[in-house]
Amino acid sequence: MSWLVPARELDFLLYDWLDSGALCDRAAFAEHDREGFEAIMDMARQIALDHYVACAARLDANEPTFDGSRVHHIPEVKAALQAFSEAGFHAGTFPEELDGLGLPMSIFQGAMALFAGANTPIVAYSMLTMGAANLIATFGTEDQRARYLPPMLEGRFMGTMCLSEPHAGSSLGDIRTRAEPREDGRYTLQGDKMWISGGEHDLSETIVHLVLARLPDAPLGTRGISLFVVPRDHVDADGALAGRNGVRISGVNHKMGSRGTVNTVLHFDGAVGELLGEAHGGLRCMFQMMNEARVAVGLGASSLGYAGYATSLAYARERPQGRPLGERDAASPQVSILAHADVRRMLLAQKALCEGGLALSLYAARLVDDHHTHPDEAVRGEAGQLLDLLTPVVKAWPSAHCLRANDLAIQVLGGYGYSREYPVERFWRDNRLNPIHEGTNGIQALDLLGRKVPRGGGAAMMLLSGRVQATIARAQAHPELAPLAAQLAASLGRTGEVTGALLMAGGAGDVDQMLANASVYLDLFGHTVVAWLWLDMAEAALRTGADTDFAAGKLQACRYFFGWELPRTEAWGALLSRLDDTCLRMEPAWF
Amino acid sequence: MSWLVPARELDFLLYDWLDSGALCDRAAFAEHDREGFEAIMDMARQIALDHYVACAARLDANEPTFDGSRVHHIPEVKAALQAFSEAGFHAGTFPEELDGLGLPMSIFQGAMALFAGANTPIVAYSMLTMGAANLIATFGTEDQRARYLPPMLEGRFMGTMCLSEPHAGSSLGDIRTRAEPREDGRYTLQGDKMWISGGEHDLSETIVHLVLARLPDAPLGTRGISLFVVPRDHVDADGALAGRNGVRISGVNHKMGSRGTVNTVLHFDGAVGELLGEAHGGLRCMFQMMNEARVAVGLGASSLGYAGYATSLAYARERPQGRPLGERDAASPQVSILAHADVRRMLLAQKALCEGGLALSLYAARLVDDHHTHPDEAVRGEAGQLLDLLTPVVKAWPSAHCLRANDLAIQVLGGYGYSREYPVERFWRDNRLNPIHEGTNGIQALDLLGRKVPRGGGAAMMLLSGRVQATIARAQAHPELAPLAAQLAASLGRTGEVTGALLMAGGAGDVDQMLANASVYLDLFGHTVVAWLWLDMAEAALRTGADTDFAAGKLQACRYFFGWELPRTEAWGALLSRLDDTCLRMEPAWF
Repeated sequence: MSWLVPARELDFLLYDWLDSGALCDRAAFAEHDREGFEAIMDMARQIALDHYVACAARLDANEPTFDGSRVHHIPEVKAALQAFSEAGFHAGTFPEELDGLGLPMSIFQGAMALFAGANTPIVAYSMLTMGAANLIATFGTEDQRARYLPPMLEGRFMGTMCLSEPHAGSSLGDIRTRAEPREDGRYTLQGDKMWISGGEHDLSETIVHLVLARLPDAPLGTRGISLFVVPRDHVDADGALAGRNGVRISGVNHKMGSRGTVNTVLHFDGAVGELLGEAHGGLRCMFQMMNEARVAVGLGASSLGYAGYATSLAYARERPQGRPLGERDAASPQVSILAHADVRRMLLAQKALCEGGLALSLYAARLVDDHHTHPDEAVRGEAGQLLDLLTPVVKAWPSAHCLRANDLAIQVLGGYGYSREYPVERFWRDNRLNPIHEGTNGIQALDLLGRKVPRGGGAAMMLLSGRVQATIARAQAHPELAPLAAQLAASLGRTGEVTGALLMAGGAGDVDQMLANASVYLDLFGHTVVAWLWLDMAEAALRTGADTDFAAGKLQACRYFFGWELPRTEAWGALLSRLDDTCLRMEPAWF
Repeated sequence: MSWLVPARELDFLLYDWLDSGALCDRAAFAEHDREGFEAIMDMARQIALDHYVACAARLDANEPTFDGSRVHHIPEVKAALQAFSEAGFHAGTFPEELDGLGLPMSIFQGAMALFAGANTPIVAYSMLTMGAANLIATFGTEDQRARYLPPMLEGRFMGTMCLSEPHAGSSLGDIRTRAEPREDGRYTLQGDKMWISGGEHDLSETIVHLVLARLPDAPLGTRGISLFVVPRDHVDADGALAGRNGVRISGVNHKMGSRGTVNTVLHFDGAVGELLGEAHGGLRCMFQMMNEARVAVGLGASSLGYAGYATSLAYARERPQGRPLGERDAASPQVSILAHADVRRMLLAQKALCEGGLALSLYAARLVDDHHTHPDEAVRGEAGQLLDLLTPVVKAWPSAHCLRANDLAIQVLGGYGYSREYPVERFWRDNRLNPIHEGTNGIQALDLLGRKVPRGGGAAMMLLSGRVQATIARAQAHPELAPLAAQLAASLGRTGEVTGALLMAGGAGDVDQMLANASVYLDLFGHTVVAWLWLDMAEAALRTGADTDFAAGKLQACRYFFGWELPRTEAWGALLSRLDDTCLRMEPAWF
């Protein structure tokens, strides 16, 4: 069996629901057609199966080794990345003039869902490389673009993000790495970076580090951070490698999961770097990369969740154990565990959570497409606003709730799920990184409630509310969906009231109280958004699939989400509305 | 730092709250006094620190190896078990005539909380040995007791439970291992057993397997299962070892966590065994061991949860990161992360869940004491009924909710929490076994709602309700607790109504519908019970600690449980009351 998201599911999400096929009518994607998209997806699936799934267990059991100066991977990793590069995926969303595939983001992310579910640790190398390339493409000079982009998009150079330091993780304003100007217009970097994924390896000709550091005259805090391109090996004017730069690996971190991605401590010791973008503007640049990374985190978390769902579903279909509750005849044949209501609960929960997470992530990718290529400028602007609002939710919701799904997958398999002979325990371990990196979920919650929601007087919230209401109106026409539409309307109203109460507390000067329970707000907000997407998907499934099992499954998963998950928003809403201060008032001495 | 449950906490639970000190007034414990209990607890803590904590990380990284015939452990494991044995803990609850310490169960489990939190995988060997010894003590013949008990209680022989087979885990009625009578009154066993913890090792002189098997004339199903004592090496009439028996290890299972406990596949190939208890009565005997094991699982899960809480609390006190929300001066010093409301939320949640789990487990142990030694026969009977009712909750609730606490501990440490340099990821992996073994949590839910609650016309539920109401009455006298008492009364009422609705559905013949959402019922029931224990503890803390930080912490954790956790029972209750059939009606073809 394969645990990858099936073609039927991706086709539904991308074409029946998000209508990404219609993107081919836009100038930017005019050279594409749906058959072409499907061919690319088939290729992605084949490479994911042959090169990513095939070595996932072996890579987890044989994490990269550090010999004191270099890092070594099992050979399958390089082969996988080569296949990925040769198929053009490192340049998947880049335009033709850079030899890119020029794919819409939604289609490309559909393909990435296959790779991420197949072998997240290998995909991390590509995500970092594509993110770094994107930054250079956006903020780099002609010369920087010419020297770095082609080899990065071919996978010959790989990239990293060097943000955290041993003493500064979430608090980037406190980084200490320094960049001194040199006479040649470049900079000399000195400092230590922590948690650097892909910081050293044997997978590419060199590694292009994008490094946050402070110039000598930099103001304190986040406004004094600049961004530098620091290749592990010097890259000369023609793009040729010219000897080692002053970047040394001082150690590797051993992780619970995602073991196949080496995670390093880097020492920049007189390393020569180039400024990327404006001085002191580094954090703004880096946020472009982080925002992309956050959507990718949500997609990856959903894909790993789905991998557990698919694996446990296949197991449940095949594993005979026990009998129906009323069956007293011990000689009667056993039934498959899928017959037991509690197993069905665990599978239906996984389906509702993971397909919900996939929908959320691909919806965000579809907003990127509209933001960049919609013919109507107003729609482009709206898509950008919605994306900005939803990004923390897209990062945090799947990484919390699809991780829950991975836990259920372990439980479905019982002792076998706890054994390393089956992949479900690995899926959980790999996925556990997602609530932590690229801004912890707590940081996402502060970003959502403290910045994204109030921004522009709540304009993005109004836009979102309008879209939810449009779905509610459409769903009311279906007898089967009308009760769910009413429930969603109540949940939307509750979210609005809670938001008002919290912003009022903040407006009255009590920012601590406003943000004290931001994590709960993110759950409330996220569950309401995912319920909306589920209702929208159920409507699309009934419209396009009619009486098929597929549509029946979508409808039942939607019902599950509304019956089992959405009611949680009532308690969350009550807690937020009463400005619960239990955690805020807990004194350190009381622990 | 140590991550073990502090003495202050155990003293509160055992003496201030459960009044286990008063047990010394009973004849069974007349030779003890509180100073003696405390000395035993100090000794347990010292051994746990020196021998269990000290090698926990190394044992996880160096799991037992199988060389094709024998299993080898790092030497620290045998040394730890030796220290445990020498202190008399393997005979902790056994009477003096067996050289036991004769401890009350609540005191003994308090000590076990220290060992379980320190190094669960090593403790598993002792739990299995003590459980097997208990079975032999209860059901064995004079001769069996004489030959097996002394070496087991000295830790020279260790024990196992051989229940599952590769094709039969939860469905024990389907086991196939056969026992043929021999002329000498013993039996020859043939069959394969799966998931056998401690099935082969170099930690003791021999291993005493307690094996479920079927006699030739056995009826089908669970009524045809008998229990056998099958030592790895023959034990002659004098108790001396007399050559290998026909038990072979055919392989080991590699697990996600609890790696230090070897888990084996055993092949019984003409092994000679002795019947323990009555023919075809094996499952009833084994249930005694399983019931003890289930209380131990709850205690272990709580202790592991607590280990994560203590570790993440110590980290949060020391790790500087970020500034208060209103602080705009980037030059101001960073605060410890304990100052951030969301970190306090994650710590307070852990405190509320893990101290709640410990309270639940020790309350159950205290019921064992009353069941066995209370001077009033009626009270003994009531304690037994309550214990019977609560056992599935004691097993399942901490293994679900203290595991959530372990997840929060990882999150508090961020990247460091995901790294194997810190123990919190190991605590989660070790604890993840608990919802699976000794009857999955789904099985516990069926046991609770399908058997324990209806038993005796709901007599045990009435008893429980009376105890909850007594606490409510006491709490109403405290102005600070009165609102919580009202909330608990509502929750108790809700649980009663839901129970009635479900039993009525079952009574009307729809057992599938009655039990379809049993897992949700267990959560509802468990949260109500733990809320009761929290209110009871808060009242005890105010009574005994007055204005101390300790009492303030108990009160705030109680408020957290009532404000953040107990409201979840509303949605659970609504779902159960409406006899939600979403999962029951999900067709296999719709997945």
